[in-house]
Amino acid sequence: MSLFISFEGVEGSGKSTQVHLLNNYLIDKGFKTLLTKEPGGTEAGEKIREILLENKFKLAPYTELFLYLASRSQNTIYTIIPALESNKIVIADRYSESTIAYQVAGRGLPEKIINEVNALATKGLSPDVTFLLDFDPEIGLQRIGYKKDRIERENIDFHLKVRAAYKKLSRQYPDRIYMVDASRPPEKIHQIIINKISNLLPQLKGNKQNNHAHK
Amino acid sequence: MSLFISFEGVEGSGKSTQVHLLNNYLIDKGFKTLLTKEPGGTEAGEKIREILLENKFKLAPYTELFLYLASRSQNTIYTIIPALESNKIVIADRYSESTIAYQVAGRGLPEKIINEVNALATKGLSPDVTFLLDFDPEIGLQRIGYKKDRIERENIDFHLKVRAAYKKLSRQYPDRIYMVDASRPPEKIHQIIINKISNLLPQLKGNKQNNHAHK
Repeated sequence: MSLFISFEGVEGSGKSTQVHLLNNYLIDKGFKTLLTKEPGGTEAGEKIREILLENKFKLAPYTELFLYLASRSQNTIYTIIPALESNKIVIADRYSESTIAYQVAGRGLPEKIINEVNALATKGLSPDVTFLLDFDPEIGLQRIGYKKDRIERENIDFHLKVRAAYKKLSRQYPDRIYMVDASRPPEKIHQIIINKISNLLPQLKGNKQNNHAHK
Repeated sequence: MSLFISFEGVEGSGKSTQVHLLNNYLIDKGFKTLLTKEPGGTEAGEKIREILLENKFKLAPYTELFLYLASRSQNTIYTIIPALESNKIVIADRYSESTIAYQVAGRGLPEKIINEVNALATKGLSPDVTFLLDFDPEIGLQRIGYKKDRIERENIDFHLKVRAAYKKLSRQYPDRIYMVDASRPPEKIHQIIINKISNLLPQLKGNKQNNHAHK
Protein backbone atom coordinates (compact mmCIF):
# COMPACT_ATOMS: atom_id res chain seq x y z
CA MET A 1 0.00 0.00 0.00
CA SER A 2 1.12 3.50 -0.78
CA LEU A 3 0.27 7.01 0.35
CA PHE A 4 0.10 10.31 -1.53
CA ILE A 5 0.63 13.45 0.57
CA SER A 6 0.60 16.97 -0.87
CA PHE A 7 1.52 20.33 0.60
CA GLU A 8 -0.15 23.58 -0.42
CA GLY A 9 0.16 27.18 0.69
CA VAL A 10 1.08 30.71 -0.35
CA GLU A 11 4.64 31.75 -1.25
CA GLY A 12 6.94 31.63 1.76
CA SER A 13 4.56 29.56 3.91
CA GLY A 14 7.30 27.04 4.72
CA LYS A 15 6.19 24.14 2.51
CA SER A 16 9.64 22.99 1.50
CA THR A 17 10.83 22.97 5.13
CA GLN A 18 7.88 20.76 6.12
CA VAL A 19 8.29 18.54 3.06
CA HIS A 20 11.89 17.84 4.04
CA LEU A 21 11.16 17.35 7.76
CA LEU A 22 8.43 14.86 6.89
CA ASN A 23 10.57 13.06 4.34
CA ASN A 24 13.42 12.63 6.84
CA TYR A 25 10.98 11.41 9.49
CA LEU A 26 9.50 8.79 7.15
CA ILE A 27 12.89 7.60 5.92
CA ASP A 28 14.04 7.24 9.57
CA LYS A 29 10.94 5.12 10.18
CA GLY A 30 11.99 2.84 7.33
CA PHE A 31 9.55 3.97 4.65
CA LYS A 32 10.42 4.41 0.98
CA THR A 33 9.51 7.91 -0.18
CA LEU A 34 9.45 10.04 -3.31
CA LEU A 35 9.70 13.82 -3.07
CA THR A 36 8.33 15.84 -5.94
CA LYS A 37 7.65 19.46 -6.71
CA GLU A 38 5.50 21.49 -9.10
CA PRO A 39 6.10 22.73 -11.64
CA GLY A 40 8.81 20.21 -12.48
CA GLY A 41 9.49 16.68 -11.33
CA THR A 42 10.39 15.36 -14.78
CA GLU A 43 12.99 16.41 -17.33
CA ALA A 44 10.33 18.01 -19.57
CA GLY A 45 8.69 19.47 -16.45
CA GLU A 46 11.90 21.25 -15.48
CA LYS A 47 11.94 22.94 -18.88
CA ILE A 48 8.30 23.93 -18.37
CA ARG A 49 9.24 25.27 -14.92
CA GLU A 50 11.82 27.57 -16.50
CA ILE A 51 9.20 29.10 -18.81
CA LEU A 52 6.73 29.50 -15.94
CA LEU A 53 8.97 30.99 -13.32
CA GLU A 54 11.64 32.95 -15.16
CA ASN A 55 10.84 36.63 -15.17
CA LYS A 56 11.79 36.78 -18.83
CA PHE A 57 8.35 35.95 -20.20
CA LYS A 58 5.03 37.71 -19.87
CA LEU A 59 2.53 34.84 -20.03
CA ALA A 60 -1.17 35.02 -20.89
CA PRO A 61 -3.37 33.52 -18.09
CA TYR A 62 -4.29 30.48 -20.18
CA THR A 63 -0.69 29.96 -21.26
CA GLU A 64 0.22 29.80 -17.58
CA LEU A 65 -2.66 27.41 -16.83
CA PHE A 66 -1.81 25.01 -19.65
CA LEU A 67 1.89 24.97 -18.76
CA TYR A 68 1.11 24.02 -15.15
CA LEU A 69 -1.25 21.30 -16.37
CA ALA A 70 1.35 20.00 -18.84
CA SER A 71 3.90 19.74 -16.06
CA ARG A 72 1.34 18.03 -13.76
CA SER A 73 0.32 15.51 -16.41
CA GLN A 74 3.92 14.56 -17.13
CA ASN A 75 4.79 14.31 -13.43
CA THR A 76 1.69 12.25 -12.63
CA ILE A 77 2.26 9.71 -15.41
CA TYR A 78 6.02 9.31 -15.22
CA THR A 79 6.85 10.04 -11.57
CA ILE A 80 3.92 9.90 -9.12
CA ILE A 81 1.93 6.91 -10.39
CA PRO A 82 5.03 4.67 -10.82
CA ALA A 83 6.18 5.61 -7.29
CA LEU A 84 2.77 4.79 -5.79
CA GLU A 85 2.75 1.50 -7.71
CA SER A 86 6.09 0.58 -6.16
CA ASN A 87 4.64 1.26 -2.69
CA LYS A 88 6.39 4.53 -2.02
CA ILE A 89 5.02 7.40 0.04
CA VAL A 90 4.82 10.32 -2.39
CA ILE A 91 5.28 13.80 -0.92
CA ALA A 92 4.36 16.54 -3.38
CA ASP A 93 5.21 20.22 -2.93
CA ARG A 94 2.03 21.52 -4.66
CA TYR A 95 -0.52 19.58 -6.71
CA SER A 96 -4.09 20.14 -8.02
CA GLU A 97 -5.21 22.70 -5.43
CA SER A 98 -2.52 25.13 -6.59
CA THR A 99 -4.38 25.50 -9.88
CA ILE A 100 -7.63 26.37 -8.12
CA ALA A 101 -5.91 28.84 -5.79
CA TYR A 102 -3.58 30.53 -8.31
CA GLN A 103 -5.26 30.28 -11.71
CA VAL A 104 -8.95 30.24 -10.73
CA ALA A 105 -8.93 32.53 -7.68
CA GLY A 106 -5.76 34.50 -8.46
CA ARG A 107 -6.16 34.93 -12.24
CA GLY A 108 -9.96 34.72 -12.35
CA LEU A 109 -10.24 31.79 -14.77
CA PRO A 110 -13.54 29.82 -14.85
CA GLU A 111 -13.69 27.16 -12.13
CA LYS A 112 -15.90 24.47 -13.63
CA ILE A 113 -13.97 23.72 -16.81
CA ILE A 114 -10.66 24.09 -15.00
CA ASN A 115 -11.70 21.44 -12.51
CA GLU A 116 -12.43 19.21 -15.49
CA VAL A 117 -9.07 19.74 -17.20
CA ASN A 118 -7.30 19.40 -13.86
CA ALA A 119 -8.87 15.93 -13.63
CA LEU A 120 -7.50 15.12 -17.10
CA ALA A 121 -4.01 16.26 -16.07
CA THR A 122 -4.05 14.14 -12.89
CA LYS A 123 -5.81 11.14 -14.48
CA GLY A 124 -8.31 11.60 -11.63
CA LEU A 125 -5.60 11.00 -9.02
CA SER A 126 -6.04 12.89 -5.75
CA PRO A 127 -3.71 13.08 -2.74
CA ASP A 128 -4.83 10.98 0.25
CA VAL A 129 -4.09 13.92 2.49
CA THR A 130 -3.20 17.55 1.76
CA PHE A 131 -1.56 19.85 4.29
CA LEU A 132 -2.50 23.46 3.75
CA LEU A 133 0.06 25.68 5.43
CA ASP A 134 -2.00 28.79 6.10
CA PHE A 135 0.16 31.88 6.31
CA ASP A 136 0.09 35.65 5.79
CA PRO A 137 1.47 36.12 2.26
CA GLU A 138 2.84 39.57 3.13
CA ILE A 139 5.23 37.97 5.63
CA GLY A 140 5.80 35.02 3.28
CA LEU A 141 6.97 37.32 0.50
CA GLN A 142 9.26 39.17 2.91
CA ARG A 143 10.85 35.80 3.76
CA ILE A 144 11.60 35.22 0.09
CA GLY A 145 13.43 38.53 -0.17
CA TYR A 146 14.43 40.24 -3.38
CA LYS A 147 14.98 37.18 -5.57
CA LYS A 148 11.37 36.62 -6.58
CA ASP A 149 10.11 34.50 -9.47
CA ARG A 150 7.33 35.52 -11.90
CA ILE A 151 4.52 34.35 -9.60
CA GLU A 152 6.05 35.72 -6.42
CA ARG A 153 6.24 39.14 -8.08
CA GLU A 154 2.46 39.37 -8.35
CA ASN A 155 0.89 42.06 -6.17
CA ILE A 156 -0.35 41.37 -2.64
CA ASP A 157 -4.02 41.30 -3.72
CA PHE A 158 -3.24 38.31 -5.93
CA HIS A 159 -1.60 36.46 -3.03
CA LEU A 160 -4.44 37.31 -0.65
CA LYS A 161 -6.92 35.81 -3.14
CA VAL A 162 -4.75 32.68 -3.27
CA ARG A 163 -4.78 32.39 0.53
CA ALA A 164 -8.56 32.87 0.72
CA ALA A 165 -9.12 30.24 -1.98
CA TYR A 166 -6.99 27.71 -0.10
CA LYS A 167 -8.99 28.30 3.09
CA LYS A 168 -12.21 27.80 1.17
CA LEU A 169 -10.89 24.52 -0.31
CA SER A 170 -10.03 23.23 3.17
CA ARG A 171 -13.63 23.92 4.23
CA GLN A 172 -14.96 22.23 1.08
CA TYR A 173 -12.87 19.07 1.52
CA PRO A 174 -12.40 18.79 5.30
CA ASP A 175 -11.73 15.03 5.11
CA ARG A 176 -8.70 15.48 2.89
CA ILE A 177 -7.37 19.03 3.19
CA TYR A 178 -6.00 19.75 6.62
CA MET A 179 -5.25 23.38 7.42
CA VAL A 180 -2.29 24.11 9.71
CA ASP A 181 -1.49 27.51 11.18
CA ALA A 182 1.92 28.04 9.59
CA SER A 183 2.85 30.98 11.81
CA ARG A 184 3.83 28.46 14.50
CA PRO A 185 7.45 27.23 14.85
CA PRO A 186 8.51 24.68 12.18
CA GLU A 187 9.07 21.89 14.73
CA LYS A 188 5.57 22.37 16.12
CA ILE A 189 4.03 22.28 12.62
CA HIS A 190 6.03 19.14 11.86
CA GLN A 191 4.62 17.51 15.02
CA ILE A 192 1.05 18.37 14.00
CA ILE A 193 1.65 16.83 10.55
CA ILE A 194 3.15 13.65 12.02
CA ASN A 195 0.26 13.27 14.44
CA LYS A 196 -2.17 13.66 11.58
CA ILE A 197 -0.60 11.02 9.34
CA SER A 198 0.35 8.58 12.13
CA ASN A 199 -3.00 6.82 11.84
CA LEU A 200 -2.35 6.26 8.13
CA LEU A 201 1.13 4.83 8.60
CA PRO A 202 0.46 1.53 10.44
CA GLN A 203 -1.44 0.36 7.35
CA LEU A 204 1.70 0.93 5.33
CA LYS A 205 3.77 -1.95 6.66
CA GLY A 206 4.23 -3.30 3.11
CA ASN A 207 6.04 -0.12 2.19
CA LYS A 208 8.73 -0.49 4.86
CA GLN A 209 12.19 -1.43 3.68
CA ASN A 210 13.19 -4.73 5.20
CA ASN A 211 15.63 -3.60 7.87
CA HIS A 212 16.63 -7.16 8.61
CA ALA A 213 17.67 -8.07 5.09
CA HIS A 214 21.39 -7.80 5.80
CA LYS A 215 21.30 -9.77 9.09
CA MET B 1 -10.51 45.04 -41.79
CA SER B 2 -8.26 42.07 -41.36
CA LEU B 3 -8.17 38.44 -42.43
CA PHE B 4 -7.04 35.28 -40.64
CA ILE B 5 -5.97 32.39 -42.90
CA SER B 6 -4.72 29.06 -41.55
CA PHE B 7 -3.10 26.08 -43.23
CA GLU B 8 -3.54 22.52 -42.04
CA GLY B 9 -2.36 19.14 -43.27
CA VAL B 10 -0.28 16.07 -42.49
CA GLU B 11 3.51 16.16 -42.22
CA GLY B 12 5.16 16.88 -45.56
CA SER B 13 1.95 18.09 -47.23
CA GLY B 14 3.65 21.29 -48.40
CA LYS B 15 2.09 23.78 -45.98
CA SER B 16 5.17 25.93 -45.53
CA THR B 17 5.69 26.22 -49.31
CA GLN B 18 2.10 27.42 -49.74
CA VAL B 19 2.33 29.74 -46.73
CA HIS B 20 5.35 31.46 -48.28
CA LEU B 21 3.91 31.61 -51.80
CA LEU B 22 0.73 33.20 -50.43
CA ASN B 23 2.65 35.62 -48.23
CA ASN B 24 4.77 36.80 -51.17
CA TYR B 25 1.69 37.17 -53.33
CA LEU B 26 -0.10 39.30 -50.71
CA ILE B 27 2.94 41.49 -50.06
CA ASP B 28 3.31 42.06 -53.81
CA LYS B 29 -0.32 43.15 -53.85
CA GLY B 30 0.46 45.72 -51.16
CA PHE B 31 -1.07 43.98 -48.14
CA LYS B 32 0.50 43.89 -44.68
CA THR B 33 0.86 40.32 -43.47
CA LEU B 34 1.97 38.37 -40.44
CA LEU B 35 3.29 34.82 -40.82
CA THR B 36 3.07 32.55 -37.81
CA LYS B 37 3.62 28.91 -37.04
CA GLU B 38 2.57 26.41 -34.36
CA PRO B 39 3.95 25.45 -31.98
CA GLY B 40 5.88 28.67 -31.55
CA GLY B 41 5.29 32.22 -32.72
CA THR B 42 6.33 33.84 -29.43
CA GLU B 43 9.49 33.66 -27.36
CA ALA B 44 7.84 31.41 -24.74
CA GLY B 45 6.22 29.46 -27.58
CA GLU B 46 9.61 28.69 -29.13
CA LYS B 47 10.71 27.15 -25.82
CA ILE B 48 7.48 25.14 -25.74
CA ARG B 49 8.19 24.04 -29.33
CA GLU B 50 11.56 22.65 -28.27
CA ILE B 51 9.93 20.47 -25.59
CA LEU B 52 7.25 19.28 -28.02
CA LEU B 53 9.35 18.46 -31.03
CA GLU B 54 12.75 17.41 -29.69
CA ASN B 55 13.10 13.66 -29.65
CA LYS B 56 14.65 13.90 -26.21
CA PHE B 57 11.39 13.70 -24.25
CA LYS B 58 8.72 11.04 -24.08
CA LEU B 59 5.55 13.05 -23.43
CA ALA B 60 2.26 11.80 -21.97
CA PRO B 61 -0.70 12.50 -24.32
CA TYR B 62 -2.12 15.20 -22.04
CA THR B 63 1.29 16.79 -21.57
CA GLU B 64 1.48 17.11 -25.34
CA LEU B 65 -2.05 18.53 -25.54
CA PHE B 66 -1.49 21.15 -22.84
CA LEU B 67 1.83 22.25 -24.32
CA TYR B 68 0.22 22.84 -27.73
CA LEU B 69 -2.61 24.77 -26.06
CA ALA B 70 -0.15 26.85 -24.03
CA SER B 71 1.72 27.77 -27.20
CA ARG B 72 -1.56 28.58 -28.99
CA SER B 73 -2.84 30.76 -26.15
CA GLN B 74 0.39 32.74 -26.01
CA ASN B 75 0.53 33.14 -29.79
CA THR B 76 -3.14 34.17 -30.02
CA ILE B 77 -2.90 36.83 -27.32
CA TYR B 78 0.50 38.32 -28.11
CA THR B 79 0.89 37.79 -31.87
CA ILE B 80 -2.30 36.98 -33.79
CA ILE B 81 -4.86 39.28 -32.12
CA PRO B 82 -2.53 42.34 -32.16
CA ALA B 83 -1.76 41.69 -35.86
CA LEU B 84 -5.45 41.43 -36.75
CA GLU B 85 -6.13 44.60 -34.74
CA SER B 86 -3.53 46.44 -36.81
CA ASN B 87 -5.27 45.28 -40.01
CA LYS B 88 -2.77 42.66 -41.06
CA ILE B 89 -3.55 39.47 -42.92
CA VAL B 90 -2.46 36.68 -40.58
CA ILE B 91 -1.25 33.47 -42.20
CA ALA B 92 -0.89 30.64 -39.69
CA ASP B 93 0.92 27.38 -40.37
CA ARG B 94 -1.40 25.23 -38.17
CA TYR B 95 -4.04 26.38 -35.67
CA SER B 96 -7.01 24.82 -33.81
CA GLU B 97 -7.73 21.98 -36.24
CA SER B 98 -4.30 20.48 -35.62
CA THR B 99 -5.39 19.65 -32.07
CA ILE B 100 -8.48 17.82 -33.28
CA ALA B 101 -6.52 15.93 -35.93
CA TYR B 102 -3.41 15.06 -33.88
CA GLN B 103 -4.49 14.88 -30.24
CA VAL B 104 -8.15 13.81 -30.58
CA ALA B 105 -7.96 11.55 -33.65
CA GLY B 106 -4.26 10.64 -33.45
CA ARG B 107 -3.90 10.19 -29.68
CA GLY B 108 -7.50 9.27 -28.94
CA LEU B 109 -8.23 12.05 -26.43
CA PRO B 110 -11.90 12.96 -25.75
CA GLU B 111 -13.28 15.39 -28.34
CA LYS B 112 -15.91 17.33 -26.42
CA ILE B 113 -13.79 18.70 -23.60
CA ILE B 114 -10.86 19.28 -25.93
CA ASN B 115 -13.04 21.44 -28.16
CA GLU B 116 -13.89 23.44 -25.03
CA VAL B 117 -10.28 23.96 -23.92
CA ASN B 118 -9.28 24.72 -27.49
CA ALA B 119 -11.81 27.56 -27.39
CA LEU B 120 -10.18 28.84 -24.17
CA ALA B 121 -6.74 28.75 -25.79
CA THR B 122 -7.94 30.67 -28.85
CA LYS B 123 -10.23 33.05 -26.92
CA GLY B 124 -12.90 31.82 -29.34
CA LEU B 125 -10.96 33.12 -32.35
CA SER B 126 -11.35 31.11 -35.53
CA PRO B 127 -9.62 31.54 -38.90
CA ASP B 128 -11.76 33.14 -41.59
CA VAL B 129 -10.58 30.50 -44.03
CA THR B 130 -8.56 27.32 -43.53
CA PHE B 131 -6.75 25.54 -46.35
CA LEU B 132 -6.47 21.83 -45.76
CA LEU B 133 -3.68 20.43 -47.91
CA ASP B 134 -4.82 16.84 -48.31
CA PHE B 135 -1.91 14.52 -48.95
CA ASP B 136 -0.77 10.92 -48.52
CA PRO B 137 1.25 10.96 -45.26
CA GLU B 138 3.41 8.06 -46.43
CA ILE B 139 4.77 10.23 -49.25
CA GLY B 140 4.82 13.28 -46.95
CA LEU B 141 7.06 11.49 -44.46
CA GLN B 142 9.36 10.36 -47.26
CA ARG B 143 9.71 14.01 -48.29
CA ILE B 144 10.87 14.87 -44.77
CA GLY B 145 13.61 12.25 -44.90
CA TYR B 146 15.60 11.00 -41.95
CA LYS B 147 15.56 14.15 -39.80
CA LYS B 148 12.17 13.62 -38.21
CA ASP B 149 10.84 15.35 -35.09
CA ARG B 150 8.93 13.60 -32.27
CA ILE B 151 5.55 13.84 -34.03
CA GLU B 152 6.86 12.92 -37.47
CA ARG B 153 8.34 9.74 -35.96
CA GLU B 154 4.89 8.40 -35.06
CA ASN B 155 3.85 5.31 -37.03
CA ILE B 156 1.89 5.53 -40.28
CA ASP B 157 -1.40 4.52 -38.59
CA PHE B 158 -1.19 7.67 -36.47
CA HIS B 159 -0.66 9.86 -39.55
CA LEU B 160 -3.49 8.14 -41.45
CA LYS B 161 -5.85 8.91 -38.55
CA VAL B 162 -4.72 12.54 -38.71
CA ARG B 163 -5.45 12.71 -42.43
CA ALA B 164 -8.89 11.13 -42.02
CA ALA B 165 -9.75 13.55 -39.18
CA TYR B 166 -8.81 16.54 -41.33
CA LYS B 167 -11.04 15.30 -44.16
CA LYS B 168 -13.90 14.89 -41.71
CA LEU B 169 -13.38 18.44 -40.41
CA SER B 170 -13.53 19.83 -43.95
CA ARG B 171 -16.89 18.08 -44.41
CA GLN B 172 -18.14 19.38 -41.04
CA TYR B 173 -17.16 23.00 -41.75
CA PRO B 174 -17.43 23.31 -45.55
CA ASP B 175 -17.88 27.10 -45.36
CA ARG B 176 -14.53 27.63 -43.68
CA ILE B 177 -12.28 24.62 -44.29
CA TYR B 178 -11.35 24.27 -47.92
CA MET B 179 -9.69 21.00 -48.94
CA VAL B 180 -7.08 21.13 -51.69
CA ASP B 181 -5.54 18.08 -53.36
CA ALA B 182 -1.92 18.63 -52.37
CA SER B 183 -0.55 16.04 -54.78
CA ARG B 184 -0.83 18.67 -57.52
CA PRO B 185 2.15 20.89 -58.44
CA PRO B 186 2.83 23.72 -55.90
CA GLU B 187 2.12 26.49 -58.45
CA LYS B 188 -1.25 24.94 -59.25
CA ILE B 189 -2.16 24.67 -55.55
CA HIS B 190 -1.07 28.27 -55.04
CA GLN B 191 -3.41 29.33 -57.88
CA ILE B 192 -6.34 27.48 -56.31
CA ILE B 193 -5.66 29.21 -52.97
CA ILE B 194 -5.43 32.65 -54.59
CA ASN B 195 -8.67 32.11 -56.49
CA LYS B 196 -10.38 31.08 -53.28
CA ILE B 197 -9.30 34.12 -51.27
CA SER B 198 -9.58 36.66 -54.10
CA ASN B 199 -13.20 37.37 -53.22
CA LEU B 200 -12.16 38.20 -49.66
CA LEU B 201 -9.38 40.57 -50.67
CA PRO B 202 -11.29 43.50 -52.27
CA GLN B 203 -12.92 44.13 -48.90
CA LEU B 204 -9.47 44.59 -47.41
CA LYS B 205 -8.59 47.92 -48.96
CA GLY B 206 -7.96 49.41 -45.49
CA ASN B 207 -5.19 46.93 -45.00
CA LYS B 208 -3.18 48.03 -48.04
CA GLN B 209 -0.01 49.94 -47.41
CA ASN B 210 -0.31 53.37 -48.90
CA ASN B 211 1.90 53.02 -51.96
CA HIS B 212 1.63 56.72 -52.70
CA ALA B 213 2.81 57.95 -49.34
CA HIS B 214 6.30 58.86 -50.58
CA LYS B 215 5.10 60.67 -53.70
